[in-house]
Amino acid sequence: MKIIVVGGTGTIGRAVVKTLTSDHEVIAVGHTDGDLQVDITNETSIKKMYTSVGSVDAVIAATGSVHFAPLLSMTAEHYQVGLRSKLMGQVNLVLLGMEYLSDGGSFTLTSGLLNHDVIRQGSSAAMVNGALEGFVKGAAIEMPRSIRINLVSPTVIAESMDKYGDYFRGYVPVPVAEAALAYSKSAQGLQTGQVYKVGWV
Amino acid sequence: MKIIVVGGTGTIGRAVVKTLTSDHEVIAVGHTDGDLQVDITNETSIKKMYTSVGSVDAVIAATGSVHFAPLLSMTAEHYQVGLRSKLMGQVNLVLLGMEYLSDGGSFTLTSGLLNHDVIRQGSSAAMVNGALEGFVKGAAIEMPRSIRINLVSPTVIAESMDKYGDYFRGYVPVPVAEAALAYSKSAQGLQTGQVYKVGWV
Repeated sequence: MKIIVVGGTGTIGRAVVKTLTSDHEVIAVGHTDGDLQVDITNETSIKKMYTSVGSVDAVIAATGSVHFAPLLSMTAEHYQVGLRSKLMGQVNLVLLGMEYLSDGGSFTLTSGLLNHDVIRQGSSAAMVNGALEGFVKGAAIEMPRSIRINLVSPTVIAESMDKYGDYFRGYVPVPVAEAALAYSKSAQGLQTGQVYKVGWV
Repeated sequence: MKIIVVGGTGTIGRAVVKTLTSDHEVIAVGHTDGDLQVDITNETSIKKMYTSVGSVDAVIAATGSVHFAPLLSMTAEHYQVGLRSKLMGQVNLVLLGMEYLSDGGSFTLTSGLLNHDVIRQGSSAAMVNGALEGFVKGAAIEMPRSIRINLVSPTVIAESMDKYGDYFRGYVPVPVAEAALAYSKSAQGLQTGQVYKVGWV
């Protein structure tokens, strides 16, 4: 299979690329590095990425940012960060990538457990993750040509604990290699409309 | 209690006003009618509403629109309709209303079952409802002064079947008076961070 991994140079993305690269042609897309570059908040940039890659069998997205801050300091503009990036960035990868995906191909997006297991400063992450769950379930039943779409929802990644550990005190981190398997399962399996929880129940 | 019902002139809102009005001072807010008018997509309009009402014990929102259309015809701009109106409109009622809410007061927002029980043309509704669920759960734990926040998630309303029945074929509609009870429970109870499902499991 020919597989694009958007966010392929990040912590999760690198592990996904590593897992898939022995059996597949994998294109790691970064923001400023990787085989190709894309700005997922920019539709023109996404279109350019797809044009240069051409037809593809799987699109994996492990990318997108949200604003973490105390609820009382959050404004509408702070919520827009996550809506523009992690939510609509990934959704636009689906909308604009549809025509490039082969029959039975798949999209795999990334959310996280914070809409179910909430933390302080996490109201935007909770919003965006919930939105992604809804979108993936809703979109799955309308996909043409047996195209599939799933969501990977990992808990905090062990290799990111130095960066995010303060937000996730008391959470059991999951090794990134284990998270990568969920993407592999989504791209190489036949399921659709699923939320693959990684490291939490 | 002094209670604002935003969307208080709509199908659900009217039933909520009717349920609460015998025991409480209820202000029905509409878009063009009602005791007061607000445009929930406009922060200035929301601020103006709160300024004119002053301190309040409960804010109920039963309002907001989303774009229903087949997935393959949806663009990012179509998703923005729901993100701006039903999602951020209701979220802004919370962010901008916080200072007007009395200690232990409550916000009650409205989603719907479409992020769990998906329908054709419903990918935007699924996105927005999921986002509202995440936001309410995330915001609940950070509320100051024992302020509470809950979400009412009704199935299709019997009294709206002429308008929405085609989307909800095979769904069991719920009488609007039953949906209204969930808002009453949220405003007059002590729970927070809850999703009150109405007419579905």
